[in-house]
Amino acid sequence: MRPVAILGIGQTIIDEQWEKSIRDIASEAVVNALHNAGRESAEGIFIGNMMSGILNSQNNLGPLVADWSGLRGGDATKVEAACASGAAAFRSGLMAVASGELESAIVVGVEKMTDRPPHEVTAALATAADADYELDMGVSFVGLNALIMRRYMHEYGWKHSDFAPFAITAHANALHNPYARLHHTITVEDFEKSAMIATPINLLDASPIGDGAAAVYIVPAESLTPGSRILVSGSASATDTLAIHDRTEPLFLTAAYKSAREAYRQAGVGPEDIDVFELHDAFTIMSALSLEASGFAEVGRGVQLGLDNEICPTGRIPVTTRGGLKARGHPVGATGVYQIVEVVQQLRGECGGTQVPEARIGMAQNIGGSGATILTHILKRE
Amino acid sequence: MRPVAILGIGQTIIDEQWEKSIRDIASEAVVNALHNAGRESAEGIFIGNMMSGILNSQNNLGPLVADWSGLRGGDATKVEAACASGAAAFRSGLMAVASGELESAIVVGVEKMTDRPPHEVTAALATAADADYELDMGVSFVGLNALIMRRYMHEYGWKHSDFAPFAITAHANALHNPYARLHHTITVEDFEKSAMIATPINLLDASPIGDGAAAVYIVPAESLTPGSRILVSGSASATDTLAIHDRTEPLFLTAAYKSAREAYRQAGVGPEDIDVFELHDAFTIMSALSLEASGFAEVGRGVQLGLDNEICPTGRIPVTTRGGLKARGHPVGATGVYQIVEVVQQLRGECGGTQVPEARIGMAQNIGGSGATILTHILKRE
Repeated sequence: MRPVAILGIGQTIIDEQWEKSIRDIASEAVVNALHNAGRESAEGIFIGNMMSGILNSQNNLGPLVADWSGLRGGDATKVEAACASGAAAFRSGLMAVASGELESAIVVGVEKMTDRPPHEVTAALATAADADYELDMGVSFVGLNALIMRRYMHEYGWKHSDFAPFAITAHANALHNPYARLHHTITVEDFEKSAMIATPINLLDASPIGDGAAAVYIVPAESLTPGSRILVSGSASATDTLAIHDRTEPLFLTAAYKSAREAYRQAGVGPEDIDVFELHDAFTIMSALSLEASGFAEVGRGVQLGLDNEICPTGRIPVTTRGGLKARGHPVGATGVYQIVEVVQQLRGECGGTQVPEARIGMAQNIGGSGATILTHILKRE
Repeated sequence: MRPVAILGIGQTIIDEQWEKSIRDIASEAVVNALHNAGRESAEGIFIGNMMSGILNSQNNLGPLVADWSGLRGGDATKVEAACASGAAAFRSGLMAVASGELESAIVVGVEKMTDRPPHEVTAALATAADADYELDMGVSFVGLNALIMRRYMHEYGWKHSDFAPFAITAHANALHNPYARLHHTITVEDFEKSAMIATPINLLDASPIGDGAAAVYIVPAESLTPGSRILVSGSASATDTLAIHDRTEPLFLTAAYKSAREAYRQAGVGPEDIDVFELHDAFTIMSALSLEASGFAEVGRGVQLGLDNEICPTGRIPVTTRGGLKARGHPVGATGVYQIVEVVQQLRGECGGTQVPEARIGMAQNIGGSGATILTHILKRE
């Protein structure tokens, strides 16, 4: 398998973009990535999206986005893995270039969610869970995460405000990201006073949805000059049961553990070598679980990293450096590609006020469902 | 890119399977393919599906199907390309094995459509078209195909009954396929008397939906002994504009032409070498267009092959030898994998009453949307 490098990146703001269709948003990111890569075309396009069939009455995004982006007629594929659709599309694009089938590809993640009323969006998001054995019991997707968080607090003795640093750090970092959905800081008091959604998850534990797209341009690494290339050094995907109640240990993200371990192996590194970690903070509890399963904290101790201020850009393991899902926003199928784009920005040194000093190795982890599909990617500048 | 071979196949009947969930149907095909391959597991699974999010409230099929099939925890990816989802998933699986990332993979196409009322299914199928510029005008997916067929008849002077051989042949072949949805023969009179759906497409021009799944087990070709291997010799995907009105020549399937040409090039063959061709006869007009764009007939002359009886198993270019979409049935996201399975059956000599004599090279062509995404695969026994 030949190594693959990222040549260009592109993104759109995350917001309520009512004046644009899903094709417009996706194409804006693609065109930005083309410009950033200094290319005019690509041999294939891979699209990460979860809900366009439900929320936009639009499937078959492949030819649509290819056409609208000026790539009419080429190879185009859509990949879906719930909230991990973006990283799954990135991995599919990697395979195509790594196999030698394509010499260049664009991966774009896109979601347009704000045209529909909230109850429809909630129902659409719930399709990430087990329809027959979870949804039919009346639980929502946030409800499932709330069950995990409540059990975690009970099991390991944390109180709700201990999770605040994940949200506070994300909001602070997003101030420096012009593409972010939210541009305001929050305090522990805000966090504690925020409206309850599904006990113990309140509004500031949860990430906001939005309309947005992010894209990367990938090529064989051998086509670039060594030195400042952004190499994809590790790519791994693992799954768990879709329903939480089928797991022997529901407080441990087994799929995160497996995919991180495999990505570390491929890259020849360990958690201690990771300079920046874009994790999947859809809810604050997921930040803790992701840090634990990926080897940055002992089981049940992920929360402590936040309390110790180790997750800020100058900490031991900087996370959500561009705002994360919490403040940059979570346009579901796009999120995994935003994470990759943001790791590239860190490795290029383009992050200004939230730049991690001398970042050379970065990791992105994208979670689909309540831990059912987890992809880990490691990028290196070299 | 290392060559890939098909080691095992599996399928389910296509019917109204109200007693089974989508996970049951998919898993039945996967387990059948595992048995057929003589394997107990696979490193990855690729799932082709179009509408589970809309019709089954179930996205994220990757971990669900992996788990239910006994492959809990492995790499699992879902691919969507409307009616071409099956072939698109097959191509993604190919890349993963060809790249060296995986040593084995299962590709399964699945759709469960009959639990919902017909108007919901019609709306779900319509998401294969352009939501903003076709659907918003009030046209259905069959309506779009009807526009193409009417123009074709006008342009090239064919009458409706000239398309009958495509449907008659498919029904005759399906009699020999125990998995087929329909097991009755039809006549030209039946064809002409059938209920109109969207002029000029009537019920017997159109393929029936259904619940079903098909699967293949793929491995590196180098792991098998030459002689009776089923090699994937050509794999290509091409797209066109999603909306028909954006095409300069709406009566020519440009994406079929491109993908067939590339698959021929990879396989080192031409149309004259193809012993069996599983084409995408969602509507009779699509059979004609597919034969023309793939080099089996001059433009505007595809219908003649049916009238000349050249499409039966002993004809010049046998098509729909197991019943095709018309009579085997069209469980949308599964169809592309059924086609691959059926070509394998032909190359193995397992087709009994519809066996193509000495079949050695077979082709499958899967169409998503009204010609927007078209994948062509060529298999060789060697």
